[in-house]
Amino acid sequence: MQHFESDYLEGAHPAVLARLAETNLEKTEGYGTDKYCASAREKIKLACDCPQAEVHFLVGGTQTNATVIRALLRPYEGVIAANSGHISVHEAGAIEAGGHKVLTLPHQDGKLMPQTVAQYLETFYRDGNHEHMVFPGMVYISHPTEYGTLYTKEELTELHALCRMYDIPLYLDGARLAYALASKQTDVTLADIAKLCDIFYIGGTKCGALFGEAVVIPTPQRIPHFFTIIKQQGALLAKGRLLGVQFEALFQDGLYEKIGAHAIEMAELLKEGLHRKGYTFYLKSPTNQQFLTLENSRLEKLSEQVCYSFWESADENHTIIRLATSWATRKEDVEALLACL
Amino acid sequence: MQHFESDYLEGAHPAVLARLAETNLEKTEGYGTDKYCASAREKIKLACDCPQAEVHFLVGGTQTNATVIRALLRPYEGVIAANSGHISVHEAGAIEAGGHKVLTLPHQDGKLMPQTVAQYLETFYRDGNHEHMVFPGMVYISHPTEYGTLYTKEELTELHALCRMYDIPLYLDGARLAYALASKQTDVTLADIAKLCDIFYIGGTKCGALFGEAVVIPTPQRIPHFFTIIKQQGALLAKGRLLGVQFEALFQDGLYEKIGAHAIEMAELLKEGLHRKGYTFYLKSPTNQQFLTLENSRLEKLSEQVCYSFWESADENHTIIRLATSWATRKEDVEALLACL
Amino acid sequence: MQHFESDYLEGAHPAVLARLAETNLEKTEGYGTDKYCASAREKIKLACDCPQAEVHFLVGGTQTNATVIRALLRPYEGVIAANSGHISVHEAGAIEAGGHKVLTLPHQDGKLMPQTVAQYLETFYRDGNHEHMVFPGMVYISHPTEYGTLYTKEELTELHALCRMYDIPLYLDGARLAYALASKQTDVTLADIAKLCDIFYIGGTKCGALFGEAVVIPTPQRIPHFFTIIKQQGALLAKGRLLGVQFEALFQDGLYEKIGAHAIEMAELLKEGLHRKGYTFYLKSPTNQQFLTLENSRLEKLSEQVCYSFWESADENHTIIRLATSWATRKEDVEALLACL
Amino acid sequence: MQHFESDYLEGAHPAVLARLAETNLEKTEGYGTDKYCASAREKIKLACDCPQAEVHFLVGGTQTNATVIRALLRPYEGVIAANSGHISVHEAGAIEAGGHKVLTLPHQDGKLMPQTVAQYLETFYRDGNHEHMVFPGMVYISHPTEYGTLYTKEELTELHALCRMYDIPLYLDGARLAYALASKQTDVTLADIAKLCDIFYIGGTKCGALFGEAVVIPTPQRIPHFFTIIKQQGALLAKGRLLGVQFEALFQDGLYEKIGAHAIEMAELLKEGLHRKGYTFYLKSPTNQQFLTLENSRLEKLSEQVCYSFWESADENHTIIRLATSWATRKEDVEALLACL
Repeated sequence: MQHFESDYLEGAHPAVLARLAETNLEKTEGYGTDKYCASAREKIKLACDCPQAEVHFLVGGTQTNATVIRALLRPYEGVIAANSGHISVHEAGAIEAGGHKVLTLPHQDGKLMPQTVAQYLETFYRDGNHEHMVFPGMVYISHPTEYGTLYTKEELTELHALCRMYDIPLYLDGARLAYALASKQTDVTLADIAKLCDIFYIGGTKCGALFGEAVVIPTPQRIPHFFTIIKQQGALLAKGRLLGVQFEALFQDGLYEKIGAHAIEMAELLKEGLHRKGYTFYLKSPTNQQFLTLENSRLEKLSEQVCYSFWESADENHTIIRLATSWATRKEDVEALLACL
Repeated sequence: MQHFESDYLEGAHPAVLARLAETNLEKTEGYGTDKYCASAREKIKLACDCPQAEVHFLVGGTQTNATVIRALLRPYEGVIAANSGHISVHEAGAIEAGGHKVLTLPHQDGKLMPQTVAQYLETFYRDGNHEHMVFPGMVYISHPTEYGTLYTKEELTELHALCRMYDIPLYLDGARLAYALASKQTDVTLADIAKLCDIFYIGGTKCGALFGEAVVIPTPQRIPHFFTIIKQQGALLAKGRLLGVQFEALFQDGLYEKIGAHAIEMAELLKEGLHRKGYTFYLKSPTNQQFLTLENSRLEKLSEQVCYSFWESADENHTIIRLATSWATRKEDVEALLACL
Repeated sequence: MQHFESDYLEGAHPAVLARLAETNLEKTEGYGTDKYCASAREKIKLACDCPQAEVHFLVGGTQTNATVIRALLRPYEGVIAANSGHISVHEAGAIEAGGHKVLTLPHQDGKLMPQTVAQYLETFYRDGNHEHMVFPGMVYISHPTEYGTLYTKEELTELHALCRMYDIPLYLDGARLAYALASKQTDVTLADIAKLCDIFYIGGTKCGALFGEAVVIPTPQRIPHFFTIIKQQGALLAKGRLLGVQFEALFQDGLYEKIGAHAIEMAELLKEGLHRKGYTFYLKSPTNQQFLTLENSRLEKLSEQVCYSFWESADENHTIIRLATSWATRKEDVEALLACL
Repeated sequence: MQHFESDYLEGAHPAVLARLAETNLEKTEGYGTDKYCASAREKIKLACDCPQAEVHFLVGGTQTNATVIRALLRPYEGVIAANSGHISVHEAGAIEAGGHKVLTLPHQDGKLMPQTVAQYLETFYRDGNHEHMVFPGMVYISHPTEYGTLYTKEELTELHALCRMYDIPLYLDGARLAYALASKQTDVTLADIAKLCDIFYIGGTKCGALFGEAVVIPTPQRIPHFFTIIKQQGALLAKGRLLGVQFEALFQDGLYEKIGAHAIEMAELLKEGLHRKGYTFYLKSPTNQQFLTLENSRLEKLSEQVCYSFWESADENHTIIRLATSWATRKEDVEALLACL
């Protein structure tokens, strides 16, 4: 069987695991106050070109979204997100469990377009009734989006300007950030993100770590007592240094970039092969997730040889599926996959 | 100025207020354990043809929705509602503040159609990913809807059957129930509602009371310790008998029916006059709320003589407005309004 | 039967009810935007000697506490209260339902003593572990307390200073404030409270209104979008003017003072009689609630003639009971009660 | 420096880490649906002598407590716990953030004694006012407790019987369960716990794993859709197999028992040495955590050579400290420590 169903099928990148093994018997303080976390923080701040930033380490994506959003919003506020956003659909109501509405807006290839947000905000404040409604308290975007697409620097700049105008924070979910940064069709750097977002996270789980996400807050003290909020959410790892060790490894010698670049190279190889074979792409994704529209009859046969992700039904006879590459995908895996298709 | 902006412009129906005055100096126990609440409960159960029902009195609509929904759902569940539903838009996130997502579906003239719900539920359980999503834990409908429209008995029966099939409760928000029951175009009785819904409330605030809503639970003990949940929500009136006295008055000698019938009669008069004058109705409402599409230029002039509710913009040049009658609307008010239009 | 079990046995003071009747058929805007609410706000600000204050009207006490506390606290904060405080015990977990811990401290005759709070705060911040604990985010006191006792101006000033030092708000629950202000043993005025507290409420339900509590925020905009938080809690009365009309009446011609003064006069009469008859007071209460320690054998007999509140068991053979006077207590009621005792 | 400040200073037991390394490049499904989780579940059920049990894997202790408690309680319920319990003090309000009160009772050497619980429950239901209070909805105990002490089988049996009588679940927090099971002064086995508790967790983080806790529900389906609640809390690990691999290793060839036994042996050695040197124990702990009362002057000097945990101030001149052993403590570490003391 060829496995292309997701980008978190394996454990950690070998270099990351090696560091966990090397440091295993060291004794350190808990809860992220150790030297490895300190060092990882420094490396991340350097990579973000943001020396004053605050960096916190959490374990997983839904957890990070739930913690950050609860920390940022006031009771009368909700979070604006694309209706295809991870927090809107596939986090089991984690945001609402924290007391806040997800204010969903239509997406365009998975993206929350600046003009959509602008129109929503304008209408909201024009409506005389808005004091009876949930206030838009922040904007959530994912980059890459759930469809593998990317915001341009111009779009991010527009979203940033909108958020400034309405005085609400812009939060970027970077669960797959390595693949965004390494895309051949992006003009957005990590430093740009640190300049344009009020808070964001650099994904570890899907980008080479065993687990872990690094929350970056470019303006320190933007969230008072974030440490305690993390603890309250149950998101504070006792052996916090496990996260420090991993992120230190990921931001040593450009490993995070290499991980992203390799997955993108494999994805490009896959795209080329699929084009050659005449497959229909559901949309153009410049990152490691590719979406195909397939006839159902064909899909059935494919299932015998390939593990993919069911995405959604396109119509009665067609289905959209996802294929994903990662740091662990080998050239021969892609070739074997193409041979099956 | 002619006032038609809502159906809660005045205090209480004089007969209700009279009873509050007559009983004012009596001494009774608090929290709904008094004889007036007991008597009101009996009258309501009789009117619902449901002798075994449980009846609880709360103060307002948003409060009642928030309390009932929080009481019914488990943490992993949300509430299905029309995207035009009151809980979806105009309750300031009360449902989410209680920890639950509102699962919004498209409406048809304000109604949540059985087939829409059926398709949603079927798709939800077919999706292999649904364990990562909020479970549909109940269905919320309003009757009349926010657009004044009504469910037919057949539609209610279908919704009931669907809820049985998926083992989730059906909850009906009857903020304006008097006007639904009195409509000339309904085949739904209070007894039908008690048979087809798992829980519902009979609106007082907008139907003749100073304030107050009566929650009816046809199957007793459906919600354990509902009293304590009401208290926790801050929805338990200390002088609970004020609610008992009012609902006793409303369900004495058919007052609730009369209140509804009068408002409907006034609405019919209004509709007739509007038709005659060539006004465009946004939709056909069989109850006390009427929605018109007007040219903006015309609206401006109207504002000088009539208080109406802005509903939404139809297009650049047209606006939808609401006019509402109530128990307090007089024939001469309607005539004066029609003279202005 | 003599009824002394609480101070909310009747409806409203006749002058309040009269105003509700007089204004009943007037048409006004909803949600507290009407002229009666505006006028009541002005009168209350005048009585508080605090022209810039914000005033909001809610329906009941638990609701007000839950709304205010949720509005003031951040996720990592809890509210300091006496372990005998209403929010600690008898509000069915309303504060926790809003996501916050009640940090209970030992009381002294129902009062939260400044030195108790000072020691708690000092210890909290000294403990190296405190980032893993709930932060003290505000102080809650009730005045009169649940035991009818009162803070002195000096104690309030000390609590105020402590709250300033730690930069947390001081909130005063004035459910029975009329009886505090009218006590013969108090040096605290309404203007003092407005100077020393960051937020407080003037109780209506237990002091002459049918229902209603007036939240006063001496520093305007202390709580952004409090209106929406009130709505979200389900605490926004649709016919908001009912609260305006009642509080206007209570603050017209010194009615609120008279209501308090009368209840205190009746309580003094009662105390005198009880002293004369050799009854044992559980503590010295200078307000309208009196607490007696009685032999159980005696209590049983008393139950046949007097309705009182069971407070708690003192020991195997003795019980503490509460007797309360109100604006509605007549001299002959007290005499009849004393005759039974 | 000698490190005895906690039992989670190092990474994982080498055998656990080895298995993570061996399986690192395997591809498996996510979210705990893989073969390693399946195998670990089987081994745990065998160790618990409870073949029908449900086993779920979470990441950390506070997270597990928050998830389980929120899943078990209804809105009107709280959780009974010792006032020294971890959930009562050091989880930053995680339980209240989930909407529930922690109903704290006095402890005896860290234990919640059956008679304390019995009296509380009896009083609660006797109090006529209890419908205005938070209902006791479950009992939380930790074993070992935060003071290292252990429940006897008789005490557990009594707590179990009490919970049956009041129809509420008994939940055991086993963050350090390995050290309880291996104690020389216990008559409680894992199978006993599975028989007497409705739900409990087997701690990994503090007992040899890198991280991870295994929740055991002896009666399957006791918590419907627990998977989704775990996801909602942000507690579902994407690469769930990391937890399966670790717990499989811990329950292979008695590793969990060996880990416990070794730490206990080291603790016994430490206790002996301390006794010999005349140290004052704060209480008698039969597990891996030892508590000493030391003069402050002495403590200062000790700080230069030994890392310990500050526990609390005993009086002005004395402090209580904690020393902890673990699977990683070596005999020479204890000897070196004793040499310093």
